[in-house]
Amino acid sequence: MDRLSATPIAEQALLDIANALGATLEGPSDVRISNLCTLEPGEEGGLSFLAQGAYAKHLCECKAAAVIVNLKQERPEGFEGSLLRVANPYEAWSRALDIYGTHTGWGSEAIDPSADLHPSVQLAPGVTIGAGVKIGAGTVLHPGVTIYPHSTIGAHCILHAGVVIGADGFGFAPPSKAQDGLQKIKHIGHVVLGDHVEIGANSCVDRAVVGATAIGHGTKLDNLCQIGHNVQIGMHCVLAGQVGIAGSTTIGHGVQIGGQVGIAGHIHIGDGVRIGAQSGVHKNIEAGKTVMGSPAVEASVFRRKFAASNMKPRS
Amino acid sequence: MDRLSATPIAEQALLDIANALGATLEGPSDVRISNLCTLEPGEEGGLSFLAQGAYAKHLCECKAAAVIVNLKQERPEGFEGSLLRVANPYEAWSRALDIYGTHTGWGSEAIDPSADLHPSVQLAPGVTIGAGVKIGAGTVLHPGVTIYPHSTIGAHCILHAGVVIGADGFGFAPPSKAQDGLQKIKHIGHVVLGDHVEIGANSCVDRAVVGATAIGHGTKLDNLCQIGHNVQIGMHCVLAGQVGIAGSTTIGHGVQIGGQVGIAGHIHIGDGVRIGAQSGVHKNIEAGKTVMGSPAVEASVFRRKFAASNMKPRS
Amino acid sequence: MDRLSATPIAEQALLDIANALGATLEGPSDVRISNLCTLEPGEEGGLSFLAQGAYAKHLCECKAAAVIVNLKQERPEGFEGSLLRVANPYEAWSRALDIYGTHTGWGSEAIDPSADLHPSVQLAPGVTIGAGVKIGAGTVLHPGVTIYPHSTIGAHCILHAGVVIGADGFGFAPPSKAQDGLQKIKHIGHVVLGDHVEIGANSCVDRAVVGATAIGHGTKLDNLCQIGHNVQIGMHCVLAGQVGIAGSTTIGHGVQIGGQVGIAGHIHIGDGVRIGAQSGVHKNIEAGKTVMGSPAVEASVFRRKFAASNMKPRS
Repeated sequence: MDRLSATPIAEQALLDIANALGATLEGPSDVRISNLCTLEPGEEGGLSFLAQGAYAKHLCECKAAAVIVNLKQERPEGFEGSLLRVANPYEAWSRALDIYGTHTGWGSEAIDPSADLHPSVQLAPGVTIGAGVKIGAGTVLHPGVTIYPHSTIGAHCILHAGVVIGADGFGFAPPSKAQDGLQKIKHIGHVVLGDHVEIGANSCVDRAVVGATAIGHGTKLDNLCQIGHNVQIGMHCVLAGQVGIAGSTTIGHGVQIGGQVGIAGHIHIGDGVRIGAQSGVHKNIEAGKTVMGSPAVEASVFRRKFAASNMKPRS
Repeated sequence: MDRLSATPIAEQALLDIANALGATLEGPSDVRISNLCTLEPGEEGGLSFLAQGAYAKHLCECKAAAVIVNLKQERPEGFEGSLLRVANPYEAWSRALDIYGTHTGWGSEAIDPSADLHPSVQLAPGVTIGAGVKIGAGTVLHPGVTIYPHSTIGAHCILHAGVVIGADGFGFAPPSKAQDGLQKIKHIGHVVLGDHVEIGANSCVDRAVVGATAIGHGTKLDNLCQIGHNVQIGMHCVLAGQVGIAGSTTIGHGVQIGGQVGIAGHIHIGDGVRIGAQSGVHKNIEAGKTVMGSPAVEASVFRRKFAASNMKPRS
Repeated sequence: MDRLSATPIAEQALLDIANALGATLEGPSDVRISNLCTLEPGEEGGLSFLAQGAYAKHLCECKAAAVIVNLKQERPEGFEGSLLRVANPYEAWSRALDIYGTHTGWGSEAIDPSADLHPSVQLAPGVTIGAGVKIGAGTVLHPGVTIYPHSTIGAHCILHAGVVIGADGFGFAPPSKAQDGLQKIKHIGHVVLGDHVEIGANSCVDRAVVGATAIGHGTKLDNLCQIGHNVQIGMHCVLAGQVGIAGSTTIGHGVQIGGQVGIAGHIHIGDGVRIGAQSGVHKNIEAGKTVMGSPAVEASVFRRKFAASNMKPRS
């Protein structure tokens, strides 16, 4: 899915970008930038950013042409691209998204004339579809569904009433001056749903900052689920009602998630994992495991702890 | 409420159904099937199915004329109907729903001309009402409400903005071949709301597989609640915000459920039960009990456990 | 924010109100009532009510001209207003709201002609805006947003698809006779959003009983959040997805709330508090604290308890 990690922009000289962001350019300067991308895996010709030291390990394998970093960040071995040094990388990244990302608002028509819908798509009353949206054969949109601009919906999908695809993810940069408020991170990425995906009533799938939030072939979501920006869900997964998945988490294939489960951001859930209802998952889960509880632990551990807690305290 | 357990179909000879499903017919063969029904309590002239051995206890009291079972299921004492033996009962049931269930899509008009609305019903802008829907006197529908086809809404109900009544429940049969995906279970049942029911903004009540999902007279739901397929809720219950109830669970009368509670499927909550906020209920609760915690236990036990967990460990 | 605690009504003589409610008037009788207000802090010329003894402490500082109380309530020292004595104060309050509160329904137009929208407001298709709504400069409403009558939205706000502002809060009076059902509490208050507020897709902010539910300048809510009636949220707070806050709770400035957190009603969360994901908060939290767990405790305590629960029981 690495093709989903970048969003194309009109090509820019890296020196012009450095000037626009007030950044010090370190490394190759005769470079042209053609997309904004995530740090992992990056993209050729791409510009990304490193906000927290914990993600520096990804930099050495990053394919991006240039990365925005803070003033003290050491250049990692193996990364041969350019560095743009600034005092506040997250704020500079936010400005890059603002300056170079394009954004399309809503037109006056409920179905934007630029949307590309297969003739067999079924649209109920009250559906709104933005510019540049693509929808595959046989897909059914129930009443009140909203598809934000530039989302891609596969074939034979079912989106139930009130589903929202492609709203901005939840990302804000801390203010550079105390008296200012949180700065909204512009979301210039999009959403990609595979074929045979079903999404329950009033569920939400947010658009990516750059690249795509993606849900794989045959995956089914129940009602009132929340899928954060840049989440990647594999094929043939099942998410019960009211599940929430925070940003940038990746979910493998064939994963089963019980009702009201919450999954933290920036973690990985392996193939075939099963997560009990109401669990809270805050770290990676290996393929094939069954976990439950909040914080979630392996099912056998959870059952032992619960049994122990029911014993009378010894006097 | 047993009249809600079945959905009528065009009458069929049982032998024809057995042939269509590739099933071996055992027991009376000169039988006509007039509805598809749940196993408990079943319905005269009905066809149902038994997917898991745990529900075999219901078969002996089942009124259905015929039940789809697996190849090894013993005939329970007391059940005199026919058995249709197949390798995969859930998949055969799914095919029976597909073949014999009728389904109505959305027309081009936001209020389907076949809907039967009392003249005193108040409709806000942006409401969508499907074919065959019935709505009683004095009911108010706020903006953006969606009522799927063949739902029945009582008198003096209030449905707040964004409510979705009658979307498909969340049911999928495992694939018969590994390379296939999950098979959607067609939902041919509907939703029935009693009189004086109020449903909060963006809450969802799913339609039944067969029969009805039902909410009793005077029951009130807060915002963002999720009610699964074939759930039965009694009269004068109160459900706070973001509650989720999984499929086929039955809730008695006068039950009070705190915010963000999750209730598992296929269980029973007795009359007058009170459930503390954020509890996770995974087994039957007797009438009159107060429970809390996840997994939920009696309130007195929960308080003792929480107090004990605050004590310093002995050294 | 005390100006938000009252909702104006057409001025009434207190004696007429006492007669209409069947109440015994105790104290000054030559008084005119110009608004219905909350007990804390009350409002000059206002009528409020005291349902539970636990709130009697607020009565001594209450500025209201008159308060509905039960037959046995002692007059608190310091309160010099009138008392209206009735058998069931909550029911009498509910009747006062019904009799004196005005209420505006939906017209036939999606954007009510009486709404006051700044010319720079951007409206997507499928938006519904009620009578008397005010929206400030530069605010963006995405598809399917519903703004109930008399809500006030600040400047430069973003409301994502499916957001519901101003639906009735969840309040019902117990029946006075056992055979009657729950009596709906009429909500005559409204919602006020400050400037630069962003609200995620399908989130809900309920209107107040009297006065206003208020969200402060620069505060950001993620998707599928539920904000109950009369909640007050300060400036520059961040609420992650699927958070629920029950009625009348107050939240300070700069508070950070993790995903799926539930907060009970009628409590106070101090400035700068941080609440871990999936926590359940049922009592006041002092400014600057970090809490987690359900029930929530200080983060250091939570971590110790969780570590202890992972130790093997001693044999």
